[in-house]
Amino acid sequence: MALKKIINAPETYTDDMLKGIYAAYPDEVKYVADDLRCYCTAKKKEGKVAIITGGGTGHLPLFLGYVGEGLLDGCGVGGVFQSPSAEQIFNVSQEVEAGAGILYLYGNYTGDIMNFDMAAEMCEFEDIETRSIVGADDVNSGEDVNIRRGVAGIFFMYKCAGAKAAQMGSLDEVLAAAQIAKDNTRTVGFALTPCIIPEVGHPNFTLGEDEMAMGMGIHGEPGIWNGPIKTAKEIAAESMDTILNDMPVAAGEEVCVLINGLGATSVEELYILSGEVADILKEKGIGIYRTFVGEYATSMEMAGASISICRMADQEMKDWIDMPVSTPFYCQK
Amino acid sequence: MALKKIINAPETYTDDMLKGIYAAYPDEVKYVADDLRCYCTAKKKEGKVAIITGGGTGHLPLFLGYVGEGLLDGCGVGGVFQSPSAEQIFNVSQEVEAGAGILYLYGNYTGDIMNFDMAAEMCEFEDIETRSIVGADDVNSGEDVNIRRGVAGIFFMYKCAGAKAAQMGSLDEVLAAAQIAKDNTRTVGFALTPCIIPEVGHPNFTLGEDEMAMGMGIHGEPGIWNGPIKTAKEIAAESMDTILNDMPVAAGEEVCVLINGLGATSVEELYILSGEVADILKEKGIGIYRTFVGEYATSMEMAGASISICRMADQEMKDWIDMPVSTPFYCQK
Repeated sequence: MALKKIINAPETYTDDMLKGIYAAYPDEVKYVADDLRCYCTAKKKEGKVAIITGGGTGHLPLFLGYVGEGLLDGCGVGGVFQSPSAEQIFNVSQEVEAGAGILYLYGNYTGDIMNFDMAAEMCEFEDIETRSIVGADDVNSGEDVNIRRGVAGIFFMYKCAGAKAAQMGSLDEVLAAAQIAKDNTRTVGFALTPCIIPEVGHPNFTLGEDEMAMGMGIHGEPGIWNGPIKTAKEIAAESMDTILNDMPVAAGEEVCVLINGLGATSVEELYILSGEVADILKEKGIGIYRTFVGEYATSMEMAGASISICRMADQEMKDWIDMPVSTPFYCQK
Repeated sequence: MALKKIINAPETYTDDMLKGIYAAYPDEVKYVADDLRCYCTAKKKEGKVAIITGGGTGHLPLFLGYVGEGLLDGCGVGGVFQSPSAEQIFNVSQEVEAGAGILYLYGNYTGDIMNFDMAAEMCEFEDIETRSIVGADDVNSGEDVNIRRGVAGIFFMYKCAGAKAAQMGSLDEVLAAAQIAKDNTRTVGFALTPCIIPEVGHPNFTLGEDEMAMGMGIHGEPGIWNGPIKTAKEIAAESMDTILNDMPVAAGEEVCVLINGLGATSVEELYILSGEVADILKEKGIGIYRTFVGEYATSMEMAGASISICRMADQEMKDWIDMPVSTPFYCQK
């Protein structure tokens, strides 16, 4: 498996990508501190709680793609599958802070936690108030929610926190909105092929010609089983069992469904999977409030997908989900 | 290369996908004539010119993904890489016709032309007025525009015709808007890997481990050369030369840029390519009116991309490009 990518050189991958993004959306986003990886909205809104995310490159539209109207305000951009530095997160923080404090909202990975925590300390010295919350929706990555990895389900945390911030909620209210989304969201993912980190040059794991990996993480973290590829119906059934055993949803309740492509998997397949998930929910008498299908959190050119379920806890949460948003990478009317 | 897809069975691929789409967006789209492949907007607007497209499955969001507000009204859906039937197009036509006639707007492929022309004749018997225009933007598919294949550049035809229809233009005005977009749009595409048609089960062509195919079509039609993979900068330079030799754009003029992923290629790579295209345009003194990056016309899990340039002929065209649109698959604020 060769490095079949449209790039200039492995070592310029992240910065070349960022240059392309800034050139494409000059009115929407900008960078600060003379560092392409300090990614900020160009439409700062005074008095609003700022939300900052961050993480490694290789997951577009995660993370920076959610910076924009109704969602996030800034993003620390790391190298491929690497954390941004504390300095970068702090630089973004200084730029986007708008007088109401900052929520750090990112995935539950050790490097990210360390650097966001350091950035929070640096903010404290500057009298910038911060709160932190991590996405940890990947059920198969651990029994204990505190050690679970954050994957595509963070979208619902962005959506709810972003909506509450746009409604000019306080820092604690925005944190609470992210927490409600976190408490009600679970994800199961599975890979069909690996991907290649440009500077490494070979696949990040191996799978047999007819194998899939259930529960694999978006950086190739091992899942719970590797075995022959199952049908869409079987994959949906196993994934939904895992999710609903971990987070029971009663008949009559409503959920949002997010079918996320990991990169190489075609949109056609995502809808085949989505249809199977819809059938399962219907059988159980669970209502679908809204369905999202597409690439929300990828692993470059990995083939595979994830299923996220977000239980609608109350009407306010539905209103957050329905709030129109617009970023260069994501738009919901 | 095994059939690594999330499906139930090759023979139910298209219909399973369609079931998933209708289940996901019950308020937005529906089918008629008891045929999943007769795909129509659920938000018909009386008095508006209806625009219908169609083509094979395997190119999402092309074709059906552009049915929605500000864009199209219906789509005949074929099997994988196959044309919809004349009956299917006619059934869609009867449903979405709203008193102002119908524009058929689709890609320049023999099977599609035959079936859309037959559907137009069936409409004539029912006193439904139609006009037809085909996208033919793929420069490397032929010297003569009349034989060129339609690829991702059809997006600009959808956008301009859809906007003119939303402005309640007449059938001839909507056709003229599509024609202006056609006259000013050119595309160059290139593949890095093949894809697998589910019912065939093996790749639709072969490329060496380090090879790319310049000019390859979205069904695997042969391009103009196969050879070692070039850098993003080299690919952008060759593609832009091809485009601008065919359609000169003067310094001081403005263009829209569409960087389209064919399926497996990561969004990161599309922005690396986009950055190179922006540099070339800047050097030539050509302004960028707007940049679009993402998957607009795919070939399932094929790796590769295309570059489309749409010259902004006048202010009206810019207004059409800027008009907000919203479909289940595509949203522009």
